[in-house]
Amino acid sequence: MEISSYLAARIQLLDRELNRHLPSESTKPHTIHKAMRYSIFAGGKRLRPVLTLAAAEACGGKIADAFPAACAVECIHTYSLIHDDLPCMDDDDLRRGRPTNHKVFGDGIAVLAGDALLTVAFEILAKSKPTKRHPIAAQIADLAHASGSRWLVGGQVADLEGEGRKLGGDDLKYIHRCKTAALLTASIRLGAMSANATPAQVKSLTTFGQSVGLAFQVIDDILDVTQPTEKLGKSAGKDVASQKATYPAVFGLDKSRAEAGRLTRAAHAALKPFGKNADTLRALADYLLAREY
Amino acid sequence: MEISSYLAARIQLLDRELNRHLPSESTKPHTIHKAMRYSIFAGGKRLRPVLTLAAAEACGGKIADAFPAACAVECIHTYSLIHDDLPCMDDDDLRRGRPTNHKVFGDGIAVLAGDALLTVAFEILAKSKPTKRHPIAAQIADLAHASGSRWLVGGQVADLEGEGRKLGGDDLKYIHRCKTAALLTASIRLGAMSANATPAQVKSLTTFGQSVGLAFQVIDDILDVTQPTEKLGKSAGKDVASQKATYPAVFGLDKSRAEAGRLTRAAHAALKPFGKNADTLRALADYLLAREY
Repeated sequence: MEISSYLAARIQLLDRELNRHLPSESTKPHTIHKAMRYSIFAGGKRLRPVLTLAAAEACGGKIADAFPAACAVECIHTYSLIHDDLPCMDDDDLRRGRPTNHKVFGDGIAVLAGDALLTVAFEILAKSKPTKRHPIAAQIADLAHASGSRWLVGGQVADLEGEGRKLGGDDLKYIHRCKTAALLTASIRLGAMSANATPAQVKSLTTFGQSVGLAFQVIDDILDVTQPTEKLGKSAGKDVASQKATYPAVFGLDKSRAEAGRLTRAAHAALKPFGKNADTLRALADYLLAREY
Repeated sequence: MEISSYLAARIQLLDRELNRHLPSESTKPHTIHKAMRYSIFAGGKRLRPVLTLAAAEACGGKIADAFPAACAVECIHTYSLIHDDLPCMDDDDLRRGRPTNHKVFGDGIAVLAGDALLTVAFEILAKSKPTKRHPIAAQIADLAHASGSRWLVGGQVADLEGEGRKLGGDDLKYIHRCKTAALLTASIRLGAMSANATPAQVKSLTTFGQSVGLAFQVIDDILDVTQPTEKLGKSAGKDVASQKATYPAVFGLDKSRAEAGRLTRAAHAALKPFGKNADTLRALADYLLAREY
């Protein structure tokens, strides 16, 4: 499997589904739908929904059944980026190589576009098909929990509060678990649930998700130090400039790289029970580590 | 029935339920849970969840079965107030007689507290008991739709975009339908659904909700013009100062008062099929109109 063409094909499928689920720009009021679509179709990597689809396949399901969950997690991820970029948060002007939402639409509309994407995520999931083992309500509870005050939102709070303060390794891991691993794990769990996964399958994929999620964030931290702005598509050195704690800052570059490797091995171990069905998930885990860090 | 003691008792019940559903202040990260609770327990009128409970009773249900829906709509209402008060939106310093969330916790945490309340609303509802006619997923879809880019969020967008511009009566009604009537109607519909309401019952209560919701907003507009700050618990004359279109500004005070009366009569007509079971809803509609405007 050629990963880059695989990803391109998946992104195309996901874009089609997102386009179908989001109100058109001609829906009143136009501004909010333009703003939502601006950030959703800003050329993101679609990592979370791609994992949702691959998790469904690993459990023997069809990707069509996982589309609503995939769109829901991408809407939540995008909302969190729009709000994180606001001047009252990380104050970032660039995202995926383009001006951030509030730079184009103003702070007020950016707050509302995030709110609307968060809300529509639950609407999309609520309209999806339940499976025998996993009622839609249970899937929504899972996603809301991972996105809520204890995890996704909680991580951003801890991140804000940590700025300019000296954080230890435990604080840093806590932030990463909340900010990145929780939603990534939920993305994978929802894919599994859409395929009527057994409890054992959900458990293994949860371990996989947590490992991949942390690995992904460690690598992002490394890339912020080692890559120039053009390559990142967002302002490089931003974490250092705002004195944010990062893996390289706390543990050094070598140890950070070793940790990323260890987490990827843990991810692979979690996939053992799935045999060949998990080959795509394996390739995705490798792809995450193969980013030049 | 003495409405003020009835409301006090309902508020006490609802506070107990909200306290049970929201993470405690000792839950990590503390700041976000403090901020969420600060605004949830800021002495609001609890109008929407009170209507949820009364709608459940009108359909022959138990209020205990409507508690999760009641808490969910109050969380969504509170999130929308926190975000509306932000400097990049309506920029208000006072709400319910106390400093607004961002004045106490800062803009970043206020955005996140709103995000977390919106998210937990769906989590609370997702964990509630389905009824025969109304799966939880359908209830969540209903609430998300009313809270989303077409309605609650859409209304705030239209409101923002209308500031300083000359709006006509139709624009104004559109904003009020979105900003107030949609969530209020959803609050009532969810109460009905928690009581396994028939389609005809849901339809009648939808009409009731839309009429009450518009009446409520017309009266709020009137009060902003006629009442001093101390009595409102929020900055009086704010709408005039920010050149917002209001009912009195567009239609005049007399016509606005007449419209509030007409809407209340429409609300009462919608309750006819419910007989005595809807006496509480009737009293609540009267109470809304009996505010001194």
